[in-house]
Amino acid sequence: MNTAFFSDLLASIADRGRSLLGLEEEPRDPSRQAAGLLELCEALLSGRGEASGAAIGMEVLERYVKLDPKGKLTFFDALARDYGPDPKRIEKALEAWRANPTEANASDIHFLAEPRRQELFRRLNRAPGGTAALVRMREELLDFRRENPSLDTIDRCLAHLFTSWFNRGFLVLRRIDWSTPASILEKIIRYEAVHEIRDWDDLRRRIDPADRRCYAFFHPALVDEPLIFVEVALTGEAPAAIAPLLAETRAVARVDQARTAVFYSISNCQRGLAGISFGNFLIKQVVEELRRELPKLETYVTLSPVPGFMRWLRARAPDLGPEERVTAAKIMDPAWAAEADKAEPLRKPVEALAAEYFLQARGSNGRPVDPVARFHLGNGARLERINFLGDCSLKALKDGAGLMVNYLYDLDDIEKNHEAYANQRVVAASSAVRRSLKGAGRSRLQLSAGSSS
Amino acid sequence: MNTAFFSDLLASIADRGRSLLGLEEEPRDPSRQAAGLLELCEALLSGRGEASGAAIGMEVLERYVKLDPKGKLTFFDALARDYGPDPKRIEKALEAWRANPTEANASDIHFLAEPRRQELFRRLNRAPGGTAALVRMREELLDFRRENPSLDTIDRCLAHLFTSWFNRGFLVLRRIDWSTPASILEKIIRYEAVHEIRDWDDLRRRIDPADRRCYAFFHPALVDEPLIFVEVALTGEAPAAIAPLLAETRAVARVDQARTAVFYSISNCQRGLAGISFGNFLIKQVVEELRRELPKLETYVTLSPVPGFMRWLRARAPDLGPEERVTAAKIMDPAWAAEADKAEPLRKPVEALAAEYFLQARGSNGRPVDPVARFHLGNGARLERINFLGDCSLKALKDGAGLMVNYLYDLDDIEKNHEAYANQRVVAASSAVRRSLKGAGRSRLQLSAGSSS
Amino acid sequence: MNTAFFSDLLASIADRGRSLLGLEEEPRDPSRQAAGLLELCEALLSGRGEASGAAIGMEVLERYVKLDPKGKLTFFDALARDYGPDPKRIEKALEAWRANPTEANASDIHFLAEPRRQELFRRLNRAPGGTAALVRMREELLDFRRENPSLDTIDRCLAHLFTSWFNRGFLVLRRIDWSTPASILEKIIRYEAVHEIRDWDDLRRRIDPADRRCYAFFHPALVDEPLIFVEVALTGEAPAAIAPLLAETRAVARVDQARTAVFYSISNCQRGLAGISFGNFLIKQVVEELRRELPKLETYVTLSPVPGFMRWLRARAPDLGPEERVTAAKIMDPAWAAEADKAEPLRKPVEALAAEYFLQARGSNGRPVDPVARFHLGNGARLERINFLGDCSLKALKDGAGLMVNYLYDLDDIEKNHEAYANQRVVAASSAVRRSLKGAGRSRLQLSAGSSS
Amino acid sequence: MNTAFFSDLLASIADRGRSLLGLEEEPRDPSRQAAGLLELCEALLSGRGEASGAAIGMEVLERYVKLDPKGKLTFFDALARDYGPDPKRIEKALEAWRANPTEANASDIHFLAEPRRQELFRRLNRAPGGTAALVRMREELLDFRRENPSLDTIDRCLAHLFTSWFNRGFLVLRRIDWSTPASILEKIIRYEAVHEIRDWDDLRRRIDPADRRCYAFFHPALVDEPLIFVEVALTGEAPAAIAPLLAETRAVARVDQARTAVFYSISNCQRGLAGISFGNFLIKQVVEELRRELPKLETYVTLSPVPGFMRWLRARAPDLGPEERVTAAKIMDPAWAAEADKAEPLRKPVEALAAEYFLQARGSNGRPVDPVARFHLGNGARLERINFLGDCSLKALKDGAGLMVNYLYDLDDIEKNHEAYANQRVVAASSAVRRSLKGAGRSRLQLSAGSSS
Repeated sequence: MNTAFFSDLLASIADRGRSLLGLEEEPRDPSRQAAGLLELCEALLSGRGEASGAAIGMEVLERYVKLDPKGKLTFFDALARDYGPDPKRIEKALEAWRANPTEANASDIHFLAEPRRQELFRRLNRAPGGTAALVRMREELLDFRRENPSLDTIDRCLAHLFTSWFNRGFLVLRRIDWSTPASILEKIIRYEAVHEIRDWDDLRRRIDPADRRCYAFFHPALVDEPLIFVEVALTGEAPAAIAPLLAETRAVARVDQARTAVFYSISNCQRGLAGISFGNFLIKQVVEELRRELPKLETYVTLSPVPGFMRWLRARAPDLGPEERVTAAKIMDPAWAAEADKAEPLRKPVEALAAEYFLQARGSNGRPVDPVARFHLGNGARLERINFLGDCSLKALKDGAGLMVNYLYDLDDIEKNHEAYANQRVVAASSAVRRSLKGAGRSRLQLSAGSSS
Repeated sequence: MNTAFFSDLLASIADRGRSLLGLEEEPRDPSRQAAGLLELCEALLSGRGEASGAAIGMEVLERYVKLDPKGKLTFFDALARDYGPDPKRIEKALEAWRANPTEANASDIHFLAEPRRQELFRRLNRAPGGTAALVRMREELLDFRRENPSLDTIDRCLAHLFTSWFNRGFLVLRRIDWSTPASILEKIIRYEAVHEIRDWDDLRRRIDPADRRCYAFFHPALVDEPLIFVEVALTGEAPAAIAPLLAETRAVARVDQARTAVFYSISNCQRGLAGISFGNFLIKQVVEELRRELPKLETYVTLSPVPGFMRWLRARAPDLGPEERVTAAKIMDPAWAAEADKAEPLRKPVEALAAEYFLQARGSNGRPVDPVARFHLGNGARLERINFLGDCSLKALKDGAGLMVNYLYDLDDIEKNHEAYANQRVVAASSAVRRSLKGAGRSRLQLSAGSSS
Repeated sequence: MNTAFFSDLLASIADRGRSLLGLEEEPRDPSRQAAGLLELCEALLSGRGEASGAAIGMEVLERYVKLDPKGKLTFFDALARDYGPDPKRIEKALEAWRANPTEANASDIHFLAEPRRQELFRRLNRAPGGTAALVRMREELLDFRRENPSLDTIDRCLAHLFTSWFNRGFLVLRRIDWSTPASILEKIIRYEAVHEIRDWDDLRRRIDPADRRCYAFFHPALVDEPLIFVEVALTGEAPAAIAPLLAETRAVARVDQARTAVFYSISNCQRGLAGISFGNFLIKQVVEELRRELPKLETYVTLSPVPGFMRWLRARAPDLGPEERVTAAKIMDPAWAAEADKAEPLRKPVEALAAEYFLQARGSNGRPVDPVARFHLGNGARLERINFLGDCSLKALKDGAGLMVNYLYDLDDIEKNHEAYANQRVVAASSAVRRSLKGAGRSRLQLSAGSSS
Repeated sequence: MNTAFFSDLLASIADRGRSLLGLEEEPRDPSRQAAGLLELCEALLSGRGEASGAAIGMEVLERYVKLDPKGKLTFFDALARDYGPDPKRIEKALEAWRANPTEANASDIHFLAEPRRQELFRRLNRAPGGTAALVRMREELLDFRRENPSLDTIDRCLAHLFTSWFNRGFLVLRRIDWSTPASILEKIIRYEAVHEIRDWDDLRRRIDPADRRCYAFFHPALVDEPLIFVEVALTGEAPAAIAPLLAETRAVARVDQARTAVFYSISNCQRGLAGISFGNFLIKQVVEELRRELPKLETYVTLSPVPGFMRWLRARAPDLGPEERVTAAKIMDPAWAAEADKAEPLRKPVEALAAEYFLQARGSNGRPVDPVARFHLGNGARLERINFLGDCSLKALKDGAGLMVNYLYDLDDIEKNHEAYANQRVVAASSAVRRSLKGAGRSRLQLSAGSSS
């Protein structure tokens, strides 16, 4: 149905509603616009103006967009300061609960302590395009928050609502291919975050050949906007390097001979949905799609970057042994990888450092240092193989010494791996990876329950 | 994408997850099944088993369905008793707030006092078909609740989530016509609650002719399930009776000569969504659709039943004047309407009683007694006309003395009407209706701000 | 795109075109309407009025519909008499060919001898809805032709064009199920020609259960109009009777246990497409659809009526032997089948007669007498089994003595069977059927190349 | 439904059919492949192998594609030589007609003289993808024909069938915009024949902005393949030059202020459909689409190149007067247009020559020389304006002296214009154009019936 026309209707209802409510039109003076906007928000929350709620909501969202940065900060400041829970209602709920500590009174505390901005956001969401507008609003909020920690309380409300609204049960998996509308494909180009898509020809090579797949999650309220997508290559063996997968001139593989599905790029699309996790669900559902379409597939594996390795190595420099120190020094300059003969002798020592990085290094919370590792291990995957010089791009050499790794999704083990990781921080890893550890023999027992490969 | 296959995958993951978590399979003994189910719920909430969350969620929902009524009550009892907020977390949040009454700490109370069952329902919603299963669960919960008021605390959580999930921003308006899939049309037949649809031919007469329209709201997660729908007739004048609209042999009107859109039936479809209001939005969006398609339409009006009139009249019997008492006595037996000659003399007195019923009678909350009136007046519509013997069906005679009324949706006034109704309980009514009141001349001032028609 | 609006445009163009061409409006006098219509046809063919060709075509089709039967016959008579090939052009082409018998000149004869009505129909087909209108026109033409054999020459042109337009390459196979639009389903109910569909519940039992399938061919220019459809039951074994398949209370079979697909009803939908054959293609494509969806299916078989058996038997009565004559006499009255005990002794003799009917009886063209047999045998199927009392409905008893048969579609044999049938009229039949023949032993060699079952 | 799987089935049926028919597999020796292919064609036509007709058809089409050029020519030669009408059947039909010159016998000549290749193509069309394969086959045939005029007789058959199959009644108009699948958009880029689309950004500027439209005709049997498309700009006035319409930085116009729709590019997409005319229908249907969507549009006009002007001018050089000769000499070198000051004095003389070119110059068939003019005038449009230096691209200067013209589609006049053009070769032109003619005053009467603008 035609939302443009519906918006017209709402605009005219909003005009009438505003005048009835005694609200002024949008002020010309930028310094007064945020104040006018907050007045509208109060009207929306007050229950007055309910008949024209969607109309007023639409006007709030439109006026917000037009605010200058200063106006937006004023607006957010007020949301953080004045749209929290009502202390009186909290007190009243507490009294009731003290007097009569029933289940119902306990629940009352929750409902009565709800920050008013949460209901405000729910009402804004009723406007046409409301969900998309709120996602964009959070994107800006996250920028403001960096310098204004007090805005955190707003983000908490939005993140809470988004978690509910973007519940996995509401997401729709769609395959992306060359018959997908261009309006969506241009976003795939734009949002690809791991291995840049240079242009439409490059895009086509990733989604059109018979041995390539791409899947994305969509939400019904965000038309033409993918939330997250994954690119997949169908291959014989698990690949050890990214360049052959993306080569312009590569031969297309016969799909009926493919035995491995390689997840070589996963990108989140919406900054405004930061922290709302879909990747876990996406990979598992894509595994199932592929299993169904191609029953001969045996292996589901990623080809992933190691983005934190060099930073960790630099931080660890003081504690390295003499040999390791030599290795570390050599790979600091990305030029080391340019000539295969010179690079090859570094294979073993770099792999040993990488094994240490994955298996032994831990952040302050006891988890692995590498963010990509945390994601896949948390999903129940296993660190299967470390690939020396898997990615010789400058970025990959600078961030991860050119390393790539394969994480294996084995449906028989993901639950076990996840539990061990979640509860005891055990990193599931193949025996090959564990053997790469310097002095691997001794430390084996303390590592992982991952089965041998 | 194929949910059947995805469910297969989940089922096998759930098997593995369950055994890993040390949970038993579904017990054969019905008396132990609820306990097993609650154990699964704990696993789902515990964060353990996260990798297989959707799988466990699916199993919870499937096992729930198979419980016998006793098992379901046991299950709900436990949800009410043991899945509320954690008192310790409440206390901790309160202490922090007392010590430091910041906005953030106030919000913390809300988030920390959240009943655990709310998060449980969110996780269940991630399973394939989760939303539909939860809506059906609430349907049963509402039945149990009648005799078990303590379950109210569960319903509050579900209703809260549904309000968020079925936010108007997520609903999709679709026209229902003869090219709509049969799987949806059979539900229109089943859910029609105002004027029964007898069979497919009857249905076709309501949705297929050029001068008929039907629109429904859908939610993307409830496939093929309308939430609410409205049936519309396009006519020259606002009709005073339902029978001609539904007659098998009526002549189809020329659409380009239609000036009035008549909303003659609005039906909610999902008992499990009771109290989650869509009707307000539906009517307004349909008005807009029609305005766009048929710019010559001038009047948007309902033809509505008066379901509470006879009950009110019986309750009011002791207070009636002598003439009114005679009238009331005559219309107690539905047979009074069978012969037009005999019925006609009752027109004026019945209309006067109806005017009193709408304009003066009030429930304990100060609102009109009639539920249909509350709905439309709350939307900002105006009581436009009382139609004597608008519906001569037995039910209509028994409930509403055969009366039907027109509520007028005038976009210029709905906001004003709504405000006056919401704040001062003023019933917007045409001057014709107000004149029907016995002794209308004297009492006029105290009635309504509704403009004259 | 909106054809209604396009029609409006055309109507106004046609008005202008008609006046420019000096044609009058549609005459009021019915006796002159056909003449006016033919004048329009001439304008359409003349090349004059080309710019408004689609418009004039639309007017021709609309005026045709409004003619009374006499007017239509006048119109058809003129089409038959005056819209054939131009004798002068034929002569000219012949002369050129005689003088110079080249390939090109031979082809010229074909193109120059084309009946003018053929081009007329092509131009009418350009109007919105033209194809559907021409299909309906042929439906009426076929009725007129029965009493007016001279109209045959028109039908030949239409049939020729339809064969080209409804080429298998342009047909689209779609599954019909409970999510199919009601506007199509009502036509399935109406067009079912083998086993009547009584109402929507009956329809649902045929298309909605997991062990039922229905497929139809559609043509892009005939929206919502199936051309032919087939109903399929998935079963364990090939069924011997129709009643259990259609029973209201039957148990739905598990699809993963099905090994047999039973084509139990094939219906042509468009009388106006009589003689344009799709059934052959439909069955083969459905076999492939099912093979792909359900790889465990092993057997593709029909359950078919024997509509010509009793007529044949009556005609053959004088030549029957004494025992056969007794059998024939007994089954003349449909009541014979009412009691199983009494019917059973007739099994062998009836089956023997049926085997003779299928294997030995031949029409004047040397083909089997039974029309259903001709269809399936011509497709390359094999007569697999004769089912005594497979259909105890009155119609089946009257037409076919209650017999049903299974034709087997075995992809390995259909080509061989078809060839043998097409060239030598060999009826492929299982050894069981052949053994049913009275004195089967002796006559075996002369019968069929069908392999034993 | 899945054609890939259907093709698999057909391939296996074809294998069986071929062996049964005693045909060999595709020969390895290229010189024998055409012969093998023709053998298959005979089998397809013979009626033998009917059960596997679609399968054999598919094999014919696949083998054809693999032939080398020599093989293809051999194949076409045989089609031209051996697949014409059967002389004996012609003779027989002629005799019957001479003996009895009835309508039916006259029609018989047509049907019996049909070249056998016509039926061959119809049967090939039944194979999956058959229509597309035949269109591509004709594309190659047209190339061969240039040097082999005897192949013309094949083309005549294909063109005849395509005219019937691509009848306007079977075409579907679809809007092309930024939400169109990329697989179609890439073809728009490739097929644009008037003003090159350089890349995806350029494409987007033509189809995505609110004041741009693009429409294409599709045929249901050619998936994702536009047949012809037109690009439209919505403007205030009719534009006089192409560059501002295509400028990267132009301001997007407000659609509600647009009064003119400019057809600035029409491209045929399928070389294999050369001569099968759709453009006439496309423009008229797009006019109607736009009229409906944007009732405020008043003018429908093209902005068209003048591709034959310079060639005509060179041919006409000997006959030019002295002044004209000077003008002609100056504009021979495209550099003349580089500086506006120097170019401006040529405006009048060039316009006069252009007016002569359009209004007076005639080809051997009495029609205008310019092919674009013939197309639009044949559609009933009027030559409205000559635009000096409307296109300063090198190509436009070389072919058309940088001229562009506007043809006006005025629904009130197209029929009249068409008739006058078709019958008396009258060129409809505005009075402004007619006045541009040198010595316009005198020659006016003999020119055009076009009304003044």
